[in-house]
Amino acid sequence: MNILIKNATVLDMVNENVPNIEKKDILIKENIIYKIDNEILDLADKIIDAKNMIVMPGLVNTHTHLAMSIFRGYKNDIKLVDWLQNAIFPVEERLKPDDIYWNSYLSCIEMIKSGTTTFNDMYFRMDKTLEAAEKSGLRGIIAWSVTDNSIKDKLERTKEYFKKYSNKKDSKIKIYVSAHAPHTCNPETLKKCVDLAKELHTGIHIHLPETLKENEIIEKKYAQSGIEYLSDSDVFDVPVVLVHGTYIKDSDIPILEKIKGGISHTPRSNCKFSSNICNITKLHDANINVGLGTDGIETSSTMDMFEEMKVAAYLQKINTQEKVKISAYEILKMATIEGAKVLGLDKEIGTIEEGKKADIICINRNKTHLYPENDICSNLVYSANGADVDTVIVDGKILMKNRKLVDVNEKEVKKKVAKIVKRLL
Amino acid sequence: MNILIKNATVLDMVNENVPNIEKKDILIKENIIYKIDNEILDLADKIIDAKNMIVMPGLVNTHTHLAMSIFRGYKNDIKLVDWLQNAIFPVEERLKPDDIYWNSYLSCIEMIKSGTTTFNDMYFRMDKTLEAAEKSGLRGIIAWSVTDNSIKDKLERTKEYFKKYSNKKDSKIKIYVSAHAPHTCNPETLKKCVDLAKELHTGIHIHLPETLKENEIIEKKYAQSGIEYLSDSDVFDVPVVLVHGTYIKDSDIPILEKIKGGISHTPRSNCKFSSNICNITKLHDANINVGLGTDGIETSSTMDMFEEMKVAAYLQKINTQEKVKISAYEILKMATIEGAKVLGLDKEIGTIEEGKKADIICINRNKTHLYPENDICSNLVYSANGADVDTVIVDGKILMKNRKLVDVNEKEVKKKVAKIVKRLL
Repeated sequence: MNILIKNATVLDMVNENVPNIEKKDILIKENIIYKIDNEILDLADKIIDAKNMIVMPGLVNTHTHLAMSIFRGYKNDIKLVDWLQNAIFPVEERLKPDDIYWNSYLSCIEMIKSGTTTFNDMYFRMDKTLEAAEKSGLRGIIAWSVTDNSIKDKLERTKEYFKKYSNKKDSKIKIYVSAHAPHTCNPETLKKCVDLAKELHTGIHIHLPETLKENEIIEKKYAQSGIEYLSDSDVFDVPVVLVHGTYIKDSDIPILEKIKGGISHTPRSNCKFSSNICNITKLHDANINVGLGTDGIETSSTMDMFEEMKVAAYLQKINTQEKVKISAYEILKMATIEGAKVLGLDKEIGTIEEGKKADIICINRNKTHLYPENDICSNLVYSANGADVDTVIVDGKILMKNRKLVDVNEKEVKKKVAKIVKRLL
Repeated sequence: MNILIKNATVLDMVNENVPNIEKKDILIKENIIYKIDNEILDLADKIIDAKNMIVMPGLVNTHTHLAMSIFRGYKNDIKLVDWLQNAIFPVEERLKPDDIYWNSYLSCIEMIKSGTTTFNDMYFRMDKTLEAAEKSGLRGIIAWSVTDNSIKDKLERTKEYFKKYSNKKDSKIKIYVSAHAPHTCNPETLKKCVDLAKELHTGIHIHLPETLKENEIIEKKYAQSGIEYLSDSDVFDVPVVLVHGTYIKDSDIPILEKIKGGISHTPRSNCKFSSNICNITKLHDANINVGLGTDGIETSSTMDMFEEMKVAAYLQKINTQEKVKISAYEILKMATIEGAKVLGLDKEIGTIEEGKKADIICINRNKTHLYPENDICSNLVYSANGADVDTVIVDGKILMKNRKLVDVNEKEVKKKVAKIVKRLL
């Protein structure tokens, strides 16, 4: 199917430093951005009038756990150890495969409704999250989260699904290896993960220490930083998504300068865990890619990447004590093209350019809180939220239009999740 | 007119520490919450079915500059001095009285649409902001912001409007004196403001130093903290709204413990100015009232108090490094009853109780990002945003229902503001 987006105000995210914003038409042929021009007169199966829209690349969520949607607001204000040991882990143990499917599906719906078109997930029973992602139409990277206590089966599943999906033409699903975190993976476990990633020519998705306590565990156990530990374990021989970055030391920076992939910055999660502020500014100065991630709903409370952008901007301005240090455009890049670089997908997505995959969102400018529009980037980062997203296209397919989901029965999903909540929480 | 709200899930904000949430009916007679009961069968002129709603007190915005709406996103990412001197001040000088009216009106519309029912404003030509507030139906405190360079006329206006409005029965408008800030008001100016506030039996609305530089100016000039300077100038003889609180020292706390009124915490503004995090936790431990304020749209980018709540919670959790330190309910109190205390309005508003003014908002729970609802307070603080507000009642009058504004021609307001933007920016 061909789609023609007419009269769009396009923020293409192509430029390095200065936003490029132009009135353009965009022609999508099948799953590709085929033509961008002043006025396109080609026939199309579908025309989207984007006169009152800002059209930009779909948002890229570089770290999440989609199946954790049922934990929204669940016992949030208690101590971290209590929360994990007594609220989260016992419920996770009782999650059935079908629960993973419906919970993930709910997160997918929320992503579509707030303009995210690509996600990067690690958890368990990822076959079910994968199923939900495919059903919802989103693009994503799937990884079975390996710990010392659960390695064999997860690496086998990774291999099995990698083979299945690397052979699928135009698949929106990619398979990564996931080692859970430095404090849950010993050197031997890490080695097995790295070996598999090398064998499959894929990347690794891994948490860095997020909290002070996790950081102390690593320093005590290995007498080195999380980054140094991963480096010594050859994790950086393959592309990586390093999540959090709240305890990166200056001496880690030269190591990070050489990695393929980058950091997934998760500001809302870091705040919720009373952790640290990731120094994006320093990472950017060293040309290290930084994307944004919502983490799971258990910490971020929504899948809304607009909220993640705001908190990222606010934390950085207060952390650096320099008003000019992070611009709205830099934040938008982190949520799009830089996120795509972190996931190794920047050849395919993250900008609006001819030849790229048609992952596009349209934002309704006709909102009180977006008026006046002195600066489109500033409005998108500081004033907009997910509810301002009007239309979402992934891989050339319309998933939402006029805020109406195209192929999803949201009521059914909520009903299924309600039953799970009732059973488990 | 009588309004009956049926089947509401009421979060009344009455309890000190534990939220009280109950299914109730609420009967509003004229401008008063007349009856709250399990099932009210009285006849009413209007019935609101709140089956899918959370019903709570309208939000209280303890510090703003409504007329600054045109500056949304305007040259936001430049240095503070440049921004003030070259972007803001030259335009402010050219603002005409009518501009103040329309700009303020736009902010009022945004407040209604995001659930704020009471505001506290200081600026110039406040007669025009007052006019817009009255037209929009909101409750508010109005103050002419006095500096050393502009004192006589502003104090006269304050007096004139105070007399006019203190005699009006059931007026939603209250007049405060405003001294702009410690760095723009010398002791003589402060004295005149205090004298007038004493004469009128009203309060003072004043900024504290927000940025490091402003704080240094005071310390250099008076060899004391901003709080000490205000205390020595007898400002605390009258009720006060002290804005920002980003540079409160431990030695200021005993002084603050004795004030009437409280602190207006403006986290988004503080971040945008790369300032400091106000230590709410310490203020709360000393039983000092803390409300939330959006500041003007020039810094906060929206009037949405839900966003202010989120950022307040996030900053506090990261500042204290203690996950448990600020609960969602505490944040909600700051946005309602505690804000009302800061403004000296807690006898009238801030909770849902029989006898209080009917300032009530209904929040639509039927949103993907509010589901599941494991914890209503957590959902309101971390997951909701202004667009989830369905119905707004101020002083017993419905200002918005099903997100439709009742008595406001938003298109006209936007058109007027468009002309101002075109002329000035």
